[in-house]
Amino acid sequence: MKKVVNDVNQIVDEMIDGLTSAHSHYLKRLPNTTVITRKDVPVQGKVGIVSGGGSGHEPAHAGYVGKGMLDAAVVGEVFTSPTPDQVIEAIKAVDSGAGVLLIIKNYTGDVMNFEMAKEMAEMEGIQVDQVIVNDDVAVEDSTFTTGRRGIAGTVFVHKIAGAMAESGASLAEVKEVAEKTIANVRSMGVALSSCAVPAAGKPSFHLGDTEMEIGIGIHGEPGIKRVPLQEADQIASALLNNILLDKDYTHSDIAVMVNGLGATPEMELYIVSRKVTQLLKEKQMNIHRTWVGEYMTSLEMAGFSITLLKLDDQLKDLLDRDCKTLSFCN
Amino acid sequence: MKKVVNDVNQIVDEMIDGLTSAHSHYLKRLPNTTVITRKDVPVQGKVGIVSGGGSGHEPAHAGYVGKGMLDAAVVGEVFTSPTPDQVIEAIKAVDSGAGVLLIIKNYTGDVMNFEMAKEMAEMEGIQVDQVIVNDDVAVEDSTFTTGRRGIAGTVFVHKIAGAMAESGASLAEVKEVAEKTIANVRSMGVALSSCAVPAAGKPSFHLGDTEMEIGIGIHGEPGIKRVPLQEADQIASALLNNILLDKDYTHSDIAVMVNGLGATPEMELYIVSRKVTQLLKEKQMNIHRTWVGEYMTSLEMAGFSITLLKLDDQLKDLLDRDCKTLSFCN
Repeated sequence: MKKVVNDVNQIVDEMIDGLTSAHSHYLKRLPNTTVITRKDVPVQGKVGIVSGGGSGHEPAHAGYVGKGMLDAAVVGEVFTSPTPDQVIEAIKAVDSGAGVLLIIKNYTGDVMNFEMAKEMAEMEGIQVDQVIVNDDVAVEDSTFTTGRRGIAGTVFVHKIAGAMAESGASLAEVKEVAEKTIANVRSMGVALSSCAVPAAGKPSFHLGDTEMEIGIGIHGEPGIKRVPLQEADQIASALLNNILLDKDYTHSDIAVMVNGLGATPEMELYIVSRKVTQLLKEKQMNIHRTWVGEYMTSLEMAGFSITLLKLDDQLKDLLDRDCKTLSFCN
Repeated sequence: MKKVVNDVNQIVDEMIDGLTSAHSHYLKRLPNTTVITRKDVPVQGKVGIVSGGGSGHEPAHAGYVGKGMLDAAVVGEVFTSPTPDQVIEAIKAVDSGAGVLLIIKNYTGDVMNFEMAKEMAEMEGIQVDQVIVNDDVAVEDSTFTTGRRGIAGTVFVHKIAGAMAESGASLAEVKEVAEKTIANVRSMGVALSSCAVPAAGKPSFHLGDTEMEIGIGIHGEPGIKRVPLQEADQIASALLNNILLDKDYTHSDIAVMVNGLGATPEMELYIVSRKVTQLLKEKQMNIHRTWVGEYMTSLEMAGFSITLLKLDDQLKDLLDRDCKTLSFCN
């Protein structure tokens, strides 16, 4: 797998430089860190929101930094958690005195490093709390995870917690609505091809010419099973059925995301989205909004995930509010 | 190359259904056509703007339908021009009496079919004019083109003409500013891998494991040359130098787009964007804004293009105005 890179040891640094120089009108890099923040942090009186994780999931998480979503994204090496010293820089930069919420995807390294940073920040007198997103219904424990993995549903948590913080809510209130979102969001993915970590220089795993892997993770961690490639409608049904076995969304208002993992053309994502819409209507669910595109990728992996979020009036309102980020627009 | 599809003969139809059902709050499909319009067309008193082309370039062109950009996108089969009967449906749907501008990428089939539709619409008393985008500096004539090809620079033409139309300008004024944009925009691309047209079921061409093709078109048409894969900075410099040989941007205000062709991770696009920013600053150009992402793709091709647009005060103002589309946000 060919890559457009210079030195593989500098890719994260160069990506962050590229990103913040391209969008310097509203993003900035904290000097000598891998932290990207809104240009106007700390926002006075507002709870700060920090997320992040390994790189390779772009536009997550820097694409969600901006008014109404995240205050900062902390970037690790490819598929590797950022270190606590980087997370604490983000916490300090976004705290205006109202406290900081960390939105962590459930991977052992991320949880450990973000929690360590939280403790260090608390020792410096900053009020910090955290939520852990674990929306992937595919597997219980996995290569990098105890419990369920956090995947594309994380973007809805960013949006809703971000809108709540922007409204002037307290840290406890922002945490509460983030927890409610996590309780109501479920996802599952499928891969048609592997990705290749640049430093490794070869595909992370191999799938045959007529195979796909159901329940894949966003780092290529194993899913549930490898099966022959099926038609789009069948794959969409299979993923959706797994999600609906896990949580009953009947008669609910829901938000839907069909998320491309990297190399799957938008055309194919919309073919999937079409079937998802049909199936949810048949099952008497009311689709409030649908997002289709690349929101939480796995480098150049071909495949996609489906996410459902059950909405009450509060979540609907927060999801619908304006925000100003690179990769999530209302 | 594995595809997430059902029947390859239905992919365009299913994509359009998926797109318009996912975003039914502001897009609609004209019944029994391959035309996607703003929900509120025709917009009274406003010049209508229609673009389109073969599918496989998503988010082009439906992703640019909305307030402040296009009124309608006409979708053809994969890499195939839409037929005149579809284009004329779009023209009729968006005309409020103020006339309609067609924005056509320079491919022989597109130009022929859009022009035929223009003539048919004029016979029905609708005022129609057209502009042809030919921003690709790579080659003069190509597989599907006499003259230069239209590629990612087309998105800037959509944005600027769309903003002008939204301001209430006349058809002549909208055409004039679209022509000015075309005169000032240049692009060039590179491919690291082929794409595969779904109906063909195999890659359109073959590139070796250490090869890239400079000057590739967005349908896999041949470029200038095949060369060994280089580092990101070298590729960025080579493309930029070709553009700057064609047009002098020194001391200009410019808009920049680094456009992914389908399978290239955003991380790599930002590594390219970083170098482009550095080079343009060295060459004393003032970057007004930069866009990085997938704007004009070629299915799952790996690679990218660079676009430069020289701005005067009018173009800057129009580029910066708010718009409301799926894939181009201000």
